[in-house]
Amino acid sequence: MTNPTTLAVRSELTYDVGLTASFAFAVAAARTDSQHIVEETVTLTPALPFELVSFGEGGTHQLIRVEVEPGWFTLAYDAVVEVHPNPTDPTLLPETPFREVPADLLPYLNPSRYCESDKMYDLVGRLFGEIEPGYARVQAVSDWVTSELTYAAGSTDASSGTADVLLQRAGVCRDFAHVGISLCRALGVPARYVSGYGKGVEPQDFHGVFEAYMGGLWWIFDPTGMVAINDFVRIGYGRDAADASFATFVGQAMLTDKTVQVTRLDQ
Amino acid sequence: MTNPTTLAVRSELTYDVGLTASFAFAVAAARTDSQHIVEETVTLTPALPFELVSFGEGGTHQLIRVEVEPGWFTLAYDAVVEVHPNPTDPTLLPETPFREVPADLLPYLNPSRYCESDKMYDLVGRLFGEIEPGYARVQAVSDWVTSELTYAAGSTDASSGTADVLLQRAGVCRDFAHVGISLCRALGVPARYVSGYGKGVEPQDFHGVFEAYMGGLWWIFDPTGMVAINDFVRIGYGRDAADASFATFVGQAMLTDKTVQVTRLDQ
Amino acid sequence: MTNPTTLAVRSELTYDVGLTASFAFAVAAARTDSQHIVEETVTLTPALPFELVSFGEGGTHQLIRVEVEPGWFTLAYDAVVEVHPNPTDPTLLPETPFREVPADLLPYLNPSRYCESDKMYDLVGRLFGEIEPGYARVQAVSDWVTSELTYAAGSTDASSGTADVLLQRAGVCRDFAHVGISLCRALGVPARYVSGYGKGVEPQDFHGVFEAYMGGLWWIFDPTGMVAINDFVRIGYGRDAADASFATFVGQAMLTDKTVQVTRLDQ
Amino acid sequence: MTNPTTLAVRSELTYDVGLTASFAFAVAAARTDSQHIVEETVTLTPALPFELVSFGEGGTHQLIRVEVEPGWFTLAYDAVVEVHPNPTDPTLLPETPFREVPADLLPYLNPSRYCESDKMYDLVGRLFGEIEPGYARVQAVSDWVTSELTYAAGSTDASSGTADVLLQRAGVCRDFAHVGISLCRALGVPARYVSGYGKGVEPQDFHGVFEAYMGGLWWIFDPTGMVAINDFVRIGYGRDAADASFATFVGQAMLTDKTVQVTRLDQ
Repeated sequence: MTNPTTLAVRSELTYDVGLTASFAFAVAAARTDSQHIVEETVTLTPALPFELVSFGEGGTHQLIRVEVEPGWFTLAYDAVVEVHPNPTDPTLLPETPFREVPADLLPYLNPSRYCESDKMYDLVGRLFGEIEPGYARVQAVSDWVTSELTYAAGSTDASSGTADVLLQRAGVCRDFAHVGISLCRALGVPARYVSGYGKGVEPQDFHGVFEAYMGGLWWIFDPTGMVAINDFVRIGYGRDAADASFATFVGQAMLTDKTVQVTRLDQ
Repeated sequence: MTNPTTLAVRSELTYDVGLTASFAFAVAAARTDSQHIVEETVTLTPALPFELVSFGEGGTHQLIRVEVEPGWFTLAYDAVVEVHPNPTDPTLLPETPFREVPADLLPYLNPSRYCESDKMYDLVGRLFGEIEPGYARVQAVSDWVTSELTYAAGSTDASSGTADVLLQRAGVCRDFAHVGISLCRALGVPARYVSGYGKGVEPQDFHGVFEAYMGGLWWIFDPTGMVAINDFVRIGYGRDAADASFATFVGQAMLTDKTVQVTRLDQ
Repeated sequence: MTNPTTLAVRSELTYDVGLTASFAFAVAAARTDSQHIVEETVTLTPALPFELVSFGEGGTHQLIRVEVEPGWFTLAYDAVVEVHPNPTDPTLLPETPFREVPADLLPYLNPSRYCESDKMYDLVGRLFGEIEPGYARVQAVSDWVTSELTYAAGSTDASSGTADVLLQRAGVCRDFAHVGISLCRALGVPARYVSGYGKGVEPQDFHGVFEAYMGGLWWIFDPTGMVAINDFVRIGYGRDAADASFATFVGQAMLTDKTVQVTRLDQ
Repeated sequence: MTNPTTLAVRSELTYDVGLTASFAFAVAAARTDSQHIVEETVTLTPALPFELVSFGEGGTHQLIRVEVEPGWFTLAYDAVVEVHPNPTDPTLLPETPFREVPADLLPYLNPSRYCESDKMYDLVGRLFGEIEPGYARVQAVSDWVTSELTYAAGSTDASSGTADVLLQRAGVCRDFAHVGISLCRALGVPARYVSGYGKGVEPQDFHGVFEAYMGGLWWIFDPTGMVAINDFVRIGYGRDAADASFATFVGQAMLTDKTVQVTRLDQ
């Protein structure tokens, strides 16, 4: 896991804009310690001025903001990214006790729109109460999600939260991540949603995974089992998928085409 | 299981009535093939005229309807009931195929207020898909509820449905019954809620269980495990607990006292 | 409103059946006092034996039950129906006080899967508390639904209940009916869902309305405003749309085509 | 509104701690431009070491973190706070267009645990679509909440969100705030929850209001109408009440007593 991998990622989004629309796209790779952007191109058609805005802790994440006139509009994002997985082996890592969770991360213990962790204390006690706290327990959470949910495109929609997903036992990547996040929070482990480009997603689309905070770092888990950690390029993050849409806009616009590509360059 | 048992049951409900109230009480034992009412007394204080109204299939069930003026009001119901459990052993009974479910029982396959069975097809496939249809599968459903839920007074309220209960994995008897009903319906087994007097309920109160329809009969299951079949005196039934409140009224009244007693006479 | 109208109705449903499936279709016109079936044809392709089963109060309603082998399967239902609207003018009708609601109709005061009336007492107090109980108040309920909801195909799905619909203020006919039912029940008026053929539904499909019980009769209301009472042929009824699907089946089958036609013959 | 007011606030929380518990209390007044802390005392009984931790934007807010051994434990917080209301009159302020909302505030447009704004676009269109965007429109939102909800202690619980509250039209201060936040977000106005001490809350307790972001500042609204802006001392803030509990802890502890006092000193 110590060798970096190099991935070429590309997304192309086409909109039919009816009334002047103001967009914030979260499609650009984040600039973090573990991922180095070798090259990066944003192509707008028609050519329009845009802003690349940093946000998040340390300004590591990037939004593309652009105002678009009525008509057809395409945003293409291309990048080559070097992914450096965490150098240390986390498997024996303990969880971070509540008293050591930094104040600014405490909100990642709270329930959010799609993660009703406040109702799940008994459930996590039953499922994971016997497991020693630590990285292995969070791995058990992720494994439970993998084994208990069926990946089924179209089984959920934009309003489906953890309660819905657990009842029907089916969902897509965002639902898998939400269940993982909810279980972690109910166990007292800060957890958040991460969006990105994942090699191996079938059919290829943006991907969603979750991160749990242990030992002063955030650790990625993909309960869908579709993507290896070093095949994942992170874009954005948040409390849950509500914070990590690939596009948010005000105005009138309809997404008419979306393609996502992820290629491993070093193989 | 072939010997009848004899149970003395008593309930006493006291209300502070603010404005003239019209009540329908479902506290009287049903007059079915399997339960014979040896004696029965309804005592109203103050003494008021009341109606004992039959309802349900074959008029087997009884409602006490009464109009009450402002002031204190107590209804006491006492009965001695002989309970004859089903004479045949159901354990090898097959389930009833959809084509043989009588038209008037088809609604018991549908979701209801507290039983969102329409969202649980994947879940029952995962949990019970490998088990041969039949009485033993419904018993497995009931056993699953017994083992997966914690009985905890106060953990739910009047608005809690199966989705809530499964998320928090805790509830009271009505919640256990609702989960059982929902799982049965999702499996294609007609199921309904039954209220009654159960010996062994701790603390003693009215009890709620569920029935599943197989082989032309309804069979009782108590997933709380608190009450033996021949220690249960049925009162009412319905789609779920919404149909089987011990009291419904219009007007202004507050329940100030409730006691329920169940005693085995033949031991 | 005293002259009967004559309507020709037709529905055609085509399924791709994967594994032997057992169907119960609720597409046949009911045989009630207010609707007379002049002629009626059920055509199955391939030709298969079927049962026409009566159900409901007085056996007035009809289910078509049929077992289907794998392959393509089409059910066509054609009927000419004479609709006799209620002879009396209901507009001055009082509501039925709780004490006079027959025991077997009390369940229509209870919440159901898509009608969470148990949470809406304050809301109906605010909205309709100043209006004198009676037919006019239920008409006000229906009018409120008409004016407060937007009819929007695709805005809801099979799991949407009254709470969802009121939050988003949009839905289709079944949602309009559910909101009307919920408001009535919260006001103490027994209410139920009715499915049928309605002339004027755009695009033409099966239709859903609601009925409220007053003065010993059930009265129809269509809060979508799309269908006149004497242009509506009733099929089935129930607590809510969960009880009134045009088709229920067990097995593996996919609806591939559905057409519904309603024509006025007497004009 | 330009003269500062001076308020003495006090809260006292007593816990029966069963197992060593780690607490984070959000009861201390925030140190912002508009509120100056004249004096402040934290008293723990038994005396225990604690940390006063800054968090939030600019480190303006304060958490009290403390580890507590089994037994009785009381935290008392006393402060005298000078509140300087915003110097400018906001009433003619325009809303902030999406393109000018800072990237780090975009999450305040997203739905959260108790604020399902993603389902309320049609509703806000109906209710506020005719009103010119601006401070007056947000005031109209707050006024609508005031007039459409009934303040009723006990009508909601910790799991009640905006959908529940709008259905039942009753709630407490946190529910009023949640509805206001949800409506603002659906209108495209960033909104957040603020907890604090409010003079006039009856019965006196911690209070919850909401803030809307316009013209580069956050503006407070109290849809309960109980507290004037300059009689409110802010403690914490967040997406919704999930982020602003007065106490969060891990371990075993039961709140046995809570008193809150707010007194105006300059009158």
